[in-house]
Amino acid sequence: MNSIQVEMSEIIIPIRTKEDEHCYDIRVGSHKLHLSGRWARKCVGRLARKILIISNDKVFGLYGNTVEATLADSGFSVSVWKMRDGERFKNMRSIEAALAAFAASGLSRTDAVIALGGGVVGDLAGFAASIYLRGIAFLQIPTTLLAMIDSSVGGKTGINSDFGKNTIGAFYQPKGVLIDTNCLSTLDTREMAAGFCEAIKQGAIGSRELFDEVSSVLSDFHAERLADHFRDPKYRPRLARMISSQVKFKACIVSGDQRESAVRRDRRSRKILNFGHTLAHALEKVTDYKYFRHGEAVGYGIIYAAELSKELALVDEKVVNLLNDVVHRSGTLPKLDNIDPKLVIEAFRFDKKQVAGSLQMVLLKGIGKPVIVDGDDIPHSAHLSALKRLFAR
Amino acid sequence: MNSIQVEMSEIIIPIRTKEDEHCYDIRVGSHKLHLSGRWARKCVGRLARKILIISNDKVFGLYGNTVEATLADSGFSVSVWKMRDGERFKNMRSIEAALAAFAASGLSRTDAVIALGGGVVGDLAGFAASIYLRGIAFLQIPTTLLAMIDSSVGGKTGINSDFGKNTIGAFYQPKGVLIDTNCLSTLDTREMAAGFCEAIKQGAIGSRELFDEVSSVLSDFHAERLADHFRDPKYRPRLARMISSQVKFKACIVSGDQRESAVRRDRRSRKILNFGHTLAHALEKVTDYKYFRHGEAVGYGIIYAAELSKELALVDEKVVNLLNDVVHRSGTLPKLDNIDPKLVIEAFRFDKKQVAGSLQMVLLKGIGKPVIVDGDDIPHSAHLSALKRLFAR
Repeated sequence: MNSIQVEMSEIIIPIRTKEDEHCYDIRVGSHKLHLSGRWARKCVGRLARKILIISNDKVFGLYGNTVEATLADSGFSVSVWKMRDGERFKNMRSIEAALAAFAASGLSRTDAVIALGGGVVGDLAGFAASIYLRGIAFLQIPTTLLAMIDSSVGGKTGINSDFGKNTIGAFYQPKGVLIDTNCLSTLDTREMAAGFCEAIKQGAIGSRELFDEVSSVLSDFHAERLADHFRDPKYRPRLARMISSQVKFKACIVSGDQRESAVRRDRRSRKILNFGHTLAHALEKVTDYKYFRHGEAVGYGIIYAAELSKELALVDEKVVNLLNDVVHRSGTLPKLDNIDPKLVIEAFRFDKKQVAGSLQMVLLKGIGKPVIVDGDDIPHSAHLSALKRLFAR
Repeated sequence: MNSIQVEMSEIIIPIRTKEDEHCYDIRVGSHKLHLSGRWARKCVGRLARKILIISNDKVFGLYGNTVEATLADSGFSVSVWKMRDGERFKNMRSIEAALAAFAASGLSRTDAVIALGGGVVGDLAGFAASIYLRGIAFLQIPTTLLAMIDSSVGGKTGINSDFGKNTIGAFYQPKGVLIDTNCLSTLDTREMAAGFCEAIKQGAIGSRELFDEVSSVLSDFHAERLADHFRDPKYRPRLARMISSQVKFKACIVSGDQRESAVRRDRRSRKILNFGHTLAHALEKVTDYKYFRHGEAVGYGIIYAAELSKELALVDEKVVNLLNDVVHRSGTLPKLDNIDPKLVIEAFRFDKKQVAGSLQMVLLKGIGKPVIVDGDDIPHSAHLSALKRLFAR
């Protein structure tokens, strides 16, 4: 009975930012998709006549008809633009194709775009919405674990370019985010691992409690069968609670530092969310965004940052091993065998988290205790040594 | 003596917006370029190490060395990227080239971009700055009359696309705007006319006083020799005051309605600044952005909007003739002979000022009395008739 109640309920996380007036809610529940038309109408108001769904073949095949029908029921004239699946299509060519589709559908300033998919779809759709007619309304229905707990929260949108990952983009807040945990039951094991790696990342920088919540889920459920657990009403409430904790953590950080201030370096500045991302972006870049899911690369990035923290005597071996264990509990990550560590180190200098010419890194003093360290304070030898240990694991 | 005092002085117009915390100053004075390094340092703060100047060959040839030297004196590592001159290069290809130049120069999140040029350079530079690493600092030194009084004020940035003018872009506020009226002495007569047409537009919607100020400048000085007057210290203060009045008016409108609210339709909503622009954008589009300077097209747009206002019995023939006279006093506009009015009417439907599927038009009830009229309330026959009268003038 208890589990059914949680099933029916909805957790609403309001997002309020200091810097401007963009306020919206993130709603977490199960079986919400068929109600998304009413939700969308509430978010974008009565002036919106047209709405365009951005998705990809796979996700649209699973949920497209449901969403399209409920949007039409709520009075929207619905059009659909599908992008190709994968991080390597998160580029300027796709943006141009999306914008052309907006124009072909006759979207005007008062109309809206809705992202139905994972992080790639959400990042691209949000950026396209932000620059079409200098910005039209944008809604998110994240369908992957990673998109639910991370990329759909906080307004970062963007694309990759020759000079790095997410190097072109905008801060652009959606008018609303709808998380239907039921979508997780169709995720493949790689996507599930990718999402859990981001959850581990947020736990590692957030608090012992947040970390233990993820860690214990990964202990109690077998990674390769997580999608089955998401399908089982008996287990779903626990996973839904974990998702809500994650969203609340990220929302809290982001609300206090919406645009990732360049000068802040305290343990609640938005920069800490980049934990694990310096290596992750470099790994993705040197493999041309074709080999890793983003979250998988973050998995390695977490271990790398932990190794580097140990090199600088910020943590001991135990913390590194704990993070390594939990990351590997999330699933089987793609092997590092064919990657040249030299190219990885070189790719660091394209990282956009440079401040005044120096690459800042987020490291750990312990679980839940992030610290921002200037690149100048990290000897090159420490990077080499941490990378060597990561590749040797 | 008095004129020298005004020459040396600087008019500072603070820009404060309700909707967010982006506050900056617009500074108007003469012979300010050689001090622009100190100004830039003050605007972007001490963390900025690199600055990239976006300009074109012509403008950079005139002022580039002065600006580059003073920026270097203020501790910036300076790089330069020059775009091709003309509205038709305000497109996605130029944005990609600009972003590649930012990356090649190693600009990081704390560095800055400075636009040195007219409206095209400013619009493109601002948009590129807004999407590079999700936004880096942006400064403006407008060198044309149009850019000084209009495009550098208010944070609208963007580019043209297959589906219309300025249809891709962002609202992005600069960290500061420096207007050196001395730059006007090198403007050609077409650029001067284009700038005055925007000034007339702002007068027409602003107030009788603002309109009369522009009108009397154009009566007292011969349009073809305006650049000479700008070179003459005896006349310059009057023109500098006119520029300040124009900037103050636009700043006032923009501060109250930064993002051009879709629902506002009062006489002080930002939408009124689009007076004359529906036809102007259509004229530019059907001539592939090659035939008109933007301001020249606005000149015709003003007369068209006046004719349409008369068709709807909002004003009488006298107002139409007054606006027509003052527009033509600004210089010789390119002829309309080779333009097909049917294509112009067709281009209206691409206009991005559509709200809920209907094209709103800014019309006049008199000088200084703008009114926003729904497209549905304007019969097609009124458009045809107004266009016919414009083409017959």
